[in-house]
Amino acid sequence: MAYIYGIHAVLALLKNSPSKAEQIYLLDKHSNKTNPAYREIIDLIQANGLSSGLKTKKELDNLATGGNHQGIVVKTRLVESTALGKKSELSEQALIQWVKHSTGQLADDEFITEDFPKDRKQPVLILILDGVEDPHNLGACMRSAEALGVMAVVVPKHGSVKNTAVVSKVASGAMEVLPLVVVTNLAYFIEQIKSAGVWIVGASHEATQSVYQYDFKGPVGIVLGGEGKGLRRLTQELCDSLVKIPMMGTVSSLNVSVATGITLYEAQRQRLSK
Amino acid sequence: MAYIYGIHAVLALLKNSPSKAEQIYLLDKHSNKTNPAYREIIDLIQANGLSSGLKTKKELDNLATGGNHQGIVVKTRLVESTALGKKSELSEQALIQWVKHSTGQLADDEFITEDFPKDRKQPVLILILDGVEDPHNLGACMRSAEALGVMAVVVPKHGSVKNTAVVSKVASGAMEVLPLVVVTNLAYFIEQIKSAGVWIVGASHEATQSVYQYDFKGPVGIVLGGEGKGLRRLTQELCDSLVKIPMMGTVSSLNVSVATGITLYEAQRQRLSK
Repeated sequence: MAYIYGIHAVLALLKNSPSKAEQIYLLDKHSNKTNPAYREIIDLIQANGLSSGLKTKKELDNLATGGNHQGIVVKTRLVESTALGKKSELSEQALIQWVKHSTGQLADDEFITEDFPKDRKQPVLILILDGVEDPHNLGACMRSAEALGVMAVVVPKHGSVKNTAVVSKVASGAMEVLPLVVVTNLAYFIEQIKSAGVWIVGASHEATQSVYQYDFKGPVGIVLGGEGKGLRRLTQELCDSLVKIPMMGTVSSLNVSVATGITLYEAQRQRLSK
Repeated sequence: MAYIYGIHAVLALLKNSPSKAEQIYLLDKHSNKTNPAYREIIDLIQANGLSSGLKTKKELDNLATGGNHQGIVVKTRLVESTALGKKSELSEQALIQWVKHSTGQLADDEFITEDFPKDRKQPVLILILDGVEDPHNLGACMRSAEALGVMAVVVPKHGSVKNTAVVSKVASGAMEVLPLVVVTNLAYFIEQIKSAGVWIVGASHEATQSVYQYDFKGPVGIVLGGEGKGLRRLTQELCDSLVKIPMMGTVSSLNVSVATGITLYEAQRQRLSK
């Protein structure tokens, strides 16, 4: 369970995934009722038959833990099908199908999964986390990935995080809108999306090229290893290219969520600058 | 107290700040004794009269909490003069002097402070955190800043972090080598370094230009606001330019340490690509 707030975020949630909204809380004395986005939210609540109620400003402040809620807070449901639940094998197949559709290997009428949206303007951008076991780090990576436009985050089943409540809390709402897909065999999954036309780029200290020297404009899967351990040997061998973030300090490495943020930022910078 | 490990990191510490090494632990059965960098470390330990002792691989693994220590771990001293201690006012003046020296406003023979090194090849890169009150976030920002080549991190005295032990732990060694300077009046400090030729760039959602459109190649001070609050109005008005990180998601913002990492990476990418 997590709370999503603010007119922009709530509107996006209700447009894309209204079933994820369990309860909507509106400010009792809302000053923004003529705002078109606010009106659209009210229409979506009614059209989807969602449950809503009024709260005071102080109550909303508490639910949003001090964030700028703009008079609207949504309590969300955890999405079991894409989270660390029982349907992970289905989700893995659905994600591979989504990737194939995105790269043009699957036509619109062959694309049958409902787990992922059909229309997506950007080339494939998938984040693969190979051995991030700490729930805080996974949550922080989910948050960075959602903010920077990743389509799905993939983790291997073996050694994956158990405490999804911590992941969800640290992810600050990202878990509710960004698919987290658990795959049984990471090597198999990587081979599948490679054959669908996705390039696999691993972040590694052993890389000879910097992350800004790699061309991220095509469909890519970005692989990062766990805190302090880096990529596993087998995973590294499956990568088409290795890249590194230039390090200027004397003692520090980057936290995995910061390294994730920088690598995804670089990919989006290139895509936006073209 | 923090532990620094790995041949490269330890060598850098012993070269730059041997007095910060309280105790050095070496692997009892070291396979790397002919490595020139390892030999140099041993020479520096002897030349500086530092305390060292032997440990088993398992003991070193524990001290380095599983990190790749390469047979060498150093227990470091907290640096009181540059941390959140009593000498912060002195450090503020020393930092301003260092900046003036770096931008050429102060000649070598006028530069008298011993708190900061005289030779630095890069243009000034200072990180100013305006309202980061959570010690975990400050520690995470210190870690990113050290890894990405910042010369000093500046925080205002009012509302600054009290629990330096948490900051130091999360910073993973960065607190011991990167000056954290507490300034009494942030506006005064910013005016001082502006007059020394440093450009002040603030990260703000209200910016009209993206971070990659700004030219970071000259001397810059980068200002980030606290979690969820952004820059204070007064601080924002002191900035020469505002930049934003492009956001692609629907619900998430970036954690301040990730936003710090991305902005510093962008500055270094530009400096390395020129």
